[in-house]
Amino acid sequence: MTHSANPPLQQLSEWQQFVLAAKAAKVDASETHILPAAGLSVDLTGQVYSAELQAAGQALLEARDFDNKRAQLFSGAAVNHTENRAAWHTMLRAVAPSQEVALERQRVNDFVRKADSERRWRDIVHIGIGGSDWGVRLAVAGFGYARSWRQVRFAANIDGHAIEGALSGLNPHDTLIVLASKSFTTAETLENGQRALEWLRSAGVEDPYSNVAAVTARPDLAAQWGVPDTQIFKLWDWVGGRFSLWSSVSLTTALTVGSDIVAGMQMGASAMDTHFAQTPFERNVPIQMALSGVVNRSVLGYGSLNIAPYDFRLTNLVPYLQQLEMESLGKSVDDSGRPVQVPTGPAVWGMPGTDAQHTFFQWLHQGSDGAPVDFIICQTAHHRWPDHHLMLIANCLAQREALMQGKDYETALNECLQAGLSLEQAQEQAHHRVHPGGRPSTLIVLPRLSPYALGALLALYEHKVFVQGVVWGINPFDQWGVEYGKVLAHGIAAALRGESTASDTHDASTTYWVQHLRQP
Amino acid sequence: MTHSANPPLQQLSEWQQFVLAAKAAKVDASETHILPAAGLSVDLTGQVYSAELQAAGQALLEARDFDNKRAQLFSGAAVNHTENRAAWHTMLRAVAPSQEVALERQRVNDFVRKADSERRWRDIVHIGIGGSDWGVRLAVAGFGYARSWRQVRFAANIDGHAIEGALSGLNPHDTLIVLASKSFTTAETLENGQRALEWLRSAGVEDPYSNVAAVTARPDLAAQWGVPDTQIFKLWDWVGGRFSLWSSVSLTTALTVGSDIVAGMQMGASAMDTHFAQTPFERNVPIQMALSGVVNRSVLGYGSLNIAPYDFRLTNLVPYLQQLEMESLGKSVDDSGRPVQVPTGPAVWGMPGTDAQHTFFQWLHQGSDGAPVDFIICQTAHHRWPDHHLMLIANCLAQREALMQGKDYETALNECLQAGLSLEQAQEQAHHRVHPGGRPSTLIVLPRLSPYALGALLALYEHKVFVQGVVWGINPFDQWGVEYGKVLAHGIAAALRGESTASDTHDASTTYWVQHLRQP
Repeated sequence: MTHSANPPLQQLSEWQQFVLAAKAAKVDASETHILPAAGLSVDLTGQVYSAELQAAGQALLEARDFDNKRAQLFSGAAVNHTENRAAWHTMLRAVAPSQEVALERQRVNDFVRKADSERRWRDIVHIGIGGSDWGVRLAVAGFGYARSWRQVRFAANIDGHAIEGALSGLNPHDTLIVLASKSFTTAETLENGQRALEWLRSAGVEDPYSNVAAVTARPDLAAQWGVPDTQIFKLWDWVGGRFSLWSSVSLTTALTVGSDIVAGMQMGASAMDTHFAQTPFERNVPIQMALSGVVNRSVLGYGSLNIAPYDFRLTNLVPYLQQLEMESLGKSVDDSGRPVQVPTGPAVWGMPGTDAQHTFFQWLHQGSDGAPVDFIICQTAHHRWPDHHLMLIANCLAQREALMQGKDYETALNECLQAGLSLEQAQEQAHHRVHPGGRPSTLIVLPRLSPYALGALLALYEHKVFVQGVVWGINPFDQWGVEYGKVLAHGIAAALRGESTASDTHDASTTYWVQHLRQP
Repeated sequence: MTHSANPPLQQLSEWQQFVLAAKAAKVDASETHILPAAGLSVDLTGQVYSAELQAAGQALLEARDFDNKRAQLFSGAAVNHTENRAAWHTMLRAVAPSQEVALERQRVNDFVRKADSERRWRDIVHIGIGGSDWGVRLAVAGFGYARSWRQVRFAANIDGHAIEGALSGLNPHDTLIVLASKSFTTAETLENGQRALEWLRSAGVEDPYSNVAAVTARPDLAAQWGVPDTQIFKLWDWVGGRFSLWSSVSLTTALTVGSDIVAGMQMGASAMDTHFAQTPFERNVPIQMALSGVVNRSVLGYGSLNIAPYDFRLTNLVPYLQQLEMESLGKSVDDSGRPVQVPTGPAVWGMPGTDAQHTFFQWLHQGSDGAPVDFIICQTAHHRWPDHHLMLIANCLAQREALMQGKDYETALNECLQAGLSLEQAQEQAHHRVHPGGRPSTLIVLPRLSPYALGALLALYEHKVFVQGVVWGINPFDQWGVEYGKVLAHGIAAALRGESTASDTHDASTTYWVQHLRQP
């Protein structure tokens, strides 16, 4: 596919209209703005809204040739033009996938069924990093309540404490090592894999490779490494790392919490795909969330986006979305290589509530900038204490309301007076109790934390990111910015090993540390 | 203490000079700027620096009456003036503490020694949230390599899945429940404590309270709750929650990884206190880091600060510092109740490298804004694979160099041509491979992850935050912004229970969800 050049965003009259409409619009909490999508309810009442902004947003997408680009995404065209590849994660979860996708799904399921029936592999050590790691961690922590008799450990970081901790205490004779690396060249994964192999070997496992499975787009390299063909599961070059949760990388998920969980997540994601592909603009949730995000970032100037899942099981949603959002939109050059002249993807950070309330909500309420917050909550919990869930919901709604409504000086002053302060004391302290309010947020309500709902939630964010990529004119599917560090690390490692000197090519500080930290 | 009114920051000529000097200064990586402090090496080469900026910073601190304020901090004066309290965490770790502090230290140590000698309590469930949680998690994960035969679980969140998971599979007859709450009114902690008590009781533990310990500034309330006096450990109103790691809250740390670890951390922190109290301006690391942070935030406009510990064991350093920095500096009103007219404390976020490289470093390198990064690494590791540690160091240095130096279009173009692209292709793709560079960072090198080094590191950040509070004129020791949400949550919980109606006082969306999510 030759990608058609986009005009620079700031030159578009539709963009200028959008900016004007966004600046004129307000958060109006007197009327709700709640949209359904694939079983989720998404409440955008806390975001800037107006009929003019809606019209301008629609015109902006038209000017960006959005319908055509969305169609290309779903048809498997090479939408990742800088790498000349498709980004066809929707195919991985399609109800009627292509034959090769169906075949790999079947191979994973068969492998799991056989392992289960043989009660084989009490423990799984999943070795992967970034996209080959977070999705599995998210699903396993999310559905731990459904977990089988297996336990899973993860080793991602090159830090030796990671693999040491992951292997510690396990029985090598009954542990499966899963190596997940799209390229099968990821340094962390191959090194940690070697340590795991040594561990198997030194424990006297007769055929250590029989305890290893691989998930990769390079089955040839995995086979060369020693993994048996029957234990190599495939993905394709059109599966981006940060979308690989939907591929055979879910082998570990299936072994740990069950193939049904994986299938359920795929179904939920597929339902969101359908919603995104077919729902008109005004009720299309990924589109509406995307445009709110563009307003917050590029018009109102918010630098970050806070993710606040009010569900302890969704701790790993934060790093998962960090990768999805920041690797996709952490770019400032458009499709045609020109600087995008407005701020693009925000920093994404967060923590489950109510922990977050005791950690950094102070900053969200009274800090200089604040950040838009995505609140996420389940209508029903899976534990047996209804009052805990009620308090969780109450806290979530309260924080959102406080951000939206704020508290003015008069109210704060009355509060202080009622607390028994003198007028003078109250007048001073009230300033410290004021909340500016008007801080934007979105509330996403899941009926419960089902695989279907989580699948839909992840696909919602994927498509939101895609829409923002179209608006900003950014390719959300490449990640050239991570290559440079790898190259530099290679050279510095050589210098640390004493194989080269660093002094010529590096800055003074790097040179100093290379000399100082060099291995004796 | 009557606090003396500060002039507004922007009216100070010293501030204006500081801004001018900061704008004129540059990152100069041709000369190193490395400072020692309490065994740590802190490399500020990657931060804006000039002799003029140093002079302006010193003058600014003088104008802010810094020496006097620092002296007040260490002397236990009521530096937390909005709550009329001291913030005397330095006393908790003093080599020669006050009698009452020494007594509680001794009580904790005796309790741990007795439990150890009786081999009592195989498992600890630590129940606390925010400041009563992160410090213990950090220390336990950091020094897991030294761990004894006990295991520890944590329950912080009101989400019932948290306490359910924490208790699951433990033996109630040999589990100690530690309740940590300064006020002993924290809703999450008391509710989770009740669930733990019910769990003990329903397992037939004869005297369930004998398996409960409490750490609190309100021993009366803990006793009323049922905790035996001998198992109540005290802290004081002058211990801020986010500094309570240094108090008896470390009971859990001592039980899990040993009293020596706690003592070692206190010693390291105390050494940093001495450094901060006595080292001249130019070589005072908390001061220098603080001023770099002020430049990045209030002059260069960076909205966030990324924490990149290149040590897998320091995962919990990120939430620990999020609380410390954002609860302390997430305020926009100064000591006298006036708006601070420059941006104050940044959003703090991060993740251990190399995980972070595969998650969001793309954004740090090529995103619109970027963020200053604090890289943290240990010279020596505690595992047995030197090459893993070498690669970890190489990656850390490489990422920092890439942020600092960047990569220009010419270099990127040559790279593309060498990779075999046609001139036209190379010219297009090179734009996507450019790194702007010039992005600030600090490198903190620990000799190894010893308790002493971690203690020094945490005290370094505490004092950095204190200095920034002085510059911005903010009280870093209160957190009024978290109160409002609690009050609102109370009302919404009542409405969800059907005890009141929400419609009169809430916005349309909150009202909708209260009705929709009300318990049947």
